[in-house]
Amino acid sequence: MNLITLEEKDFFEPGRARLRGRRQQHILQVHRASPGDQLRVGLLNGKIGTGRVIFLDSDTVELQIELQDPPPPALPLTLILALPRPKMLKRVIQHVTALGVKRLYLINAYRVEKSYWQTPWLEDDKLREQCLLGLEQSVDTQMPQIELRKRFKPFVEDELPAISADSLKLVAHPVTESPCPVDIAGRTTLAVGPEGGFIPYEVEKLQEIGFDAVHLGPRILRVETALPVLLGRLFPGR
Amino acid sequence: MNLITLEEKDFFEPGRARLRGRRQQHILQVHRASPGDQLRVGLLNGKIGTGRVIFLDSDTVELQIELQDPPPPALPLTLILALPRPKMLKRVIQHVTALGVKRLYLINAYRVEKSYWQTPWLEDDKLREQCLLGLEQSVDTQMPQIELRKRFKPFVEDELPAISADSLKLVAHPVTESPCPVDIAGRTTLAVGPEGGFIPYEVEKLQEIGFDAVHLGPRILRVETALPVLLGRLFPGR
Repeated sequence: MNLITLEEKDFFEPGRARLRGRRQQHILQVHRASPGDQLRVGLLNGKIGTGRVIFLDSDTVELQIELQDPPPPALPLTLILALPRPKMLKRVIQHVTALGVKRLYLINAYRVEKSYWQTPWLEDDKLREQCLLGLEQSVDTQMPQIELRKRFKPFVEDELPAISADSLKLVAHPVTESPCPVDIAGRTTLAVGPEGGFIPYEVEKLQEIGFDAVHLGPRILRVETALPVLLGRLFPGR
Repeated sequence: MNLITLEEKDFFEPGRARLRGRRQQHILQVHRASPGDQLRVGLLNGKIGTGRVIFLDSDTVELQIELQDPPPPALPLTLILALPRPKMLKRVIQHVTALGVKRLYLINAYRVEKSYWQTPWLEDDKLREQCLLGLEQSVDTQMPQIELRKRFKPFVEDELPAISADSLKLVAHPVTESPCPVDIAGRTTLAVGPEGGFIPYEVEKLQEIGFDAVHLGPRILRVETALPVLLGRLFPGR
């Protein structure tokens, strides 16, 4: 937790926040803070600054809050990701949030097992929890928007053209000739398949609406490895 | 398992291998192979090719082996990594192996907890197991060399100058002015600290022997996220 995230409801008067539970425990046990200590805090979807400890006991911490800095810039990216298996999903949400992704569509694909859609980790509060962990890690405050789309074809035909309009459209695909470009300046929509990849029909559907298939080299990577590699390569300056 | 790895001892006559256990089970249950089917195989530290199923029962598979292709090129990188906590260590070994790292030093640092050095995951056969999983994922055969160094200062002073000779020397450090370079052609030695980073003394010791501190942008990433980002950025063509 490199950042303590605050919400409006944590403020009991202007400039003063009171925390209990997970964040209070972290301040007490990991920071081992004392009154007067300064912690890095950020208002969810708002600015970053400092929280000075005013009061701290085993149950409650009160902070004097000053917020002055903007959060780091968002990646100019919309990520279209075939739903990973539940165990990986948690980590992937944390990773991509930490990397600055703000728009994520979790979609179905032929090689996504149906059971994956049943996982409790797709519930709103669970997704939010993983996003928060990613924001706290990367010192960011802007919550990603995550959308679930359980049908591939209607999503790609009816929604994706508008979602990806005026952006560079890429689909990561191991068996193609073009390497993934490096250092993209503009808006990008990146589609990444499940373990085993998109099937040819799915790649073709994406190509029909303007997506270019690109590869990452001769190695086949797991989705959770491939995503940071792709983002580090597309946006090395971010 | 995108590749079935073979060892010399699997061959019962030239060009014929017999497998039992984990690989046999994978061929039976995941590939659901039948006699005549072709599987992608590779000889550990050797070439890649195909294995045609000659015989298969619930216990044993026999393959006719043809090896013709070289493994993908190794990254021209020596990675110096502060020992991660055990749970992350497993994943990190798999990630970096899959990404093509062939020389890895796991070292001590001030923020590495002493207990981490006690984990059974550092035993030779456990490390080898994680490396194998990384190779099988990424369709590679070249085993990484992993060395453990439990004392930071003697390693950096006495060994690292020779290890890193004639290479670009970088230490990933969030609080520095220079961004990490993109698309390095030549040999590189990259040092990556523990969660919380190297302490200033450690960064200075590395700088004294020619390492440049570089950052990855305003975001603080976990080691397992930062590593693929760094490698995707340094070696985008690989």
